[in-house]
Formats: sequence, structure tokens, C-alpha cells
Amino acid sequence: MSSELKKIGGSKRFSAIAIHNDVVHLAGQVSQLIEGDITAQSKDVFTKVDNLLAEAGTSREKVFSVQIWLADMREYDEMNEVWDSWVENLNAAPTRVCVEARMAKPHYKIEVLVLAAL
Amino acid sequence: MSSELKKIGGSKRFSAIAIHNDVVHLAGQVSQLIEGDITAQSKDVFTKVDNLLAEAGTSREKVFSVQIWLADMREYDEMNEVWDSWVENLNAAPTRVCVEARMAKPHYKIEVLVLAAL
Amino acid sequence: MSSELKKIGGSKRFSAIAIHNDVVHLAGQVSQLIEGDITAQSKDVFTKVDNLLAEAGTSREKVFSVQIWLADMREYDEMNEVWDSWVENLNAAPTRVCVEARMAKPHYKIEVLVLAAL
Repeated sequence: MSSELKKIGGSKRFSAIAIHNDVVHLAGQVSQLIEGDITAQSKDVFTKVDNLLAEAGTSREKVFSVQIWLADMREYDEMNEVWDSWVENLNAAPTRVCVEARMAKPHYKIEVLVLAAL
Repeated sequence: MSSELKKIGGSKRFSAIAIHNDVVHLAGQVSQLIEGDITAQSKDVFTKVDNLLAEAGTSREKVFSVQIWLADMREYDEMNEVWDSWVENLNAAPTRVCVEARMAKPHYKIEVLVLAAL
Repeated sequence: MSSELKKIGGSKRFSAIAIHNDVVHLAGQVSQLIEGDITAQSKDVFTKVDNLLAEAGTSREKVFSVQIWLADMREYDEMNEVWDSWVENLNAAPTRVCVEARMAKPHYKIEVLVLAAL
């Protein structure tokens, strides 16, 4: 295990990935599908997560904690359909918490914060 | 310290416990006491936390970070009464953050996310 | 790396700092500038963060994850001005997530949760 801190990608404002002590921290992931419904945005967000995990050198199986924010909790079931298919082939799903919150842009319907083992 | 990732309990949708690098991550804990007020639900939630910590091989003393969501911030003082008695015999309380949010079910008055050392 | 858990400062209710496995966890930081606008409160909050990081034996450069709650997302740009100047001299900014939430006191306009490497 390396205790060196590594930050990857993103912008001047925030890194996309931080790695420390074999833990991968992803920046909050949102979807730019402005017209996308919760299903489209959720799929888009989890695809971004998969891509960032790969870039960090890990994968969906190693995710152990996910925080989910929904702009509208009435879309919980639709988000869960996407989630369930995202986790269905894993040996075990991550821990998870999901609450409602307004996000940085009005078209964001979902934001996720992901922690994974390296 | 083991850098192996271990996930315990819960459901197909999410694990109840994830252990990595001697850190125990619990899934967001809520209360199914549908008629319970904030005091009853808070006690229920922290009892669940104690039980999961025990299952993970750790205890309340080793908790170092707690996020708390309240459905109604006007119930902050009542939640704190339960919290204060939960931490009163510890050598030191965890770090904490508490904000308001709507949760997955309308009867949820509190949800907590807990990190503990193993 | 020490896997010993250390908690520093704060109150009976919560510690200001917890250190475990070379990760520094700060309690949620808010501003007591009751009359302060988002700019004043954001500057105050990030100054507190700097001070706590120093007390923990680390610094802004080593921060790798920040959660930000705003009481009013319409103040996102003003918060970001303070943020951008807080991170501008870093080799790389932390990962970040920002959502809206009501906080424990009505005058809180911002709360932040900070993780840093030791």
C-alpha cells in the first residue's frame, strides 16, 4: 500500500480522482444530458463512474461506498432500476446512502460520490 | 492491517458493512418505526449502528465520522439528546456533520452514515 | 502509517479532528458570522479548515475530498470564487461534491466536510 496522495484529471477547480492509501475517491459525478430523464442520467453517471474507476486502476467490484443525491425522491425507483443492473453481477454491492438534494445545476437529477478500493 | 475488501450482510442492492484498510463503512441506517418520533427513531438507528459495529468487530468508541440527515431540522435538539447519551461514555466523540434532507421513505426522520476504525 | 485512532479538540458532542490511517477527518465546519454573506462565511469556513489542518499536522495541499453544502444554491458562484482562490496555488485541487441543504442553524450559508492526508 502506498500512502502517497495522487490526484488525477478534472480541472483547476477540482480533481476527478484522488488516490490515497489504496482508496480511490471520485469527484461527485453528474450528467450533462440536459434533456435526459432520471434513467438516462443515472446510466450516464454510472458509465462515467466505470470509466473513472478504470482510469484509477480499479473497477466496479471494488466500490465499497456510494452516496447518491436525487433532485426528486419520487424518482428513487427509476434510479434503483439502473443501480440494480449496475450491481447485479458483483459478488457484493457497495454500502450506500441516498437522500434528496438540489444540485449545482437545475438539470442535474442525480449526483453520486464513490469510494473504491484500489 | 489488511487491505483486502470485505462486504458483509445487507441485500443484493447494498451491503450493510464494508471493511477496507481497517475502516468499517456502514450503509446509511434508518428506522422502520413508522409511527416513531425523532427520539424513538434516533434510538433505533443508533442501536442498529451498535449492532452493525459489533458484527464488523468494532464498537462505538472507534467511530470517528458520522454524517446525520434529518428530515426536519426543527428536530435537531431532540436528535441531539439521543446522540449525547450515545457518546457520553466515550473517551472522545466522533467528528460529525448534520444537514437536512428528504430521505427514501416519507417516515424516515433520520439517516446516519458511520465510519469506524476496526 | 499508524492505524491508531486519534481524536482532537471539539466538544463533548463531537471531536473537531479525527486521525486514522494517515487520514485526517474534520468535523463539519460552519461560520458563526451571523450577519456574514456567503463570501464572508466561505472565507471564514476555509480559514477554519486551514487552522484545523495545521493543528492535525497537515495542510491544504493534502486535502483530497471536500463535501460542500450550501443553504442556497443560487450562491454557488460566490462560494466558488472563494473556493477557487483557496485552491489556486495547489498542485491539484481536491475531489469535491456540492449540494444544497438546510443546516443546523438558520444563519449557516455553507458547511464543509474535509478529508486530508496526513
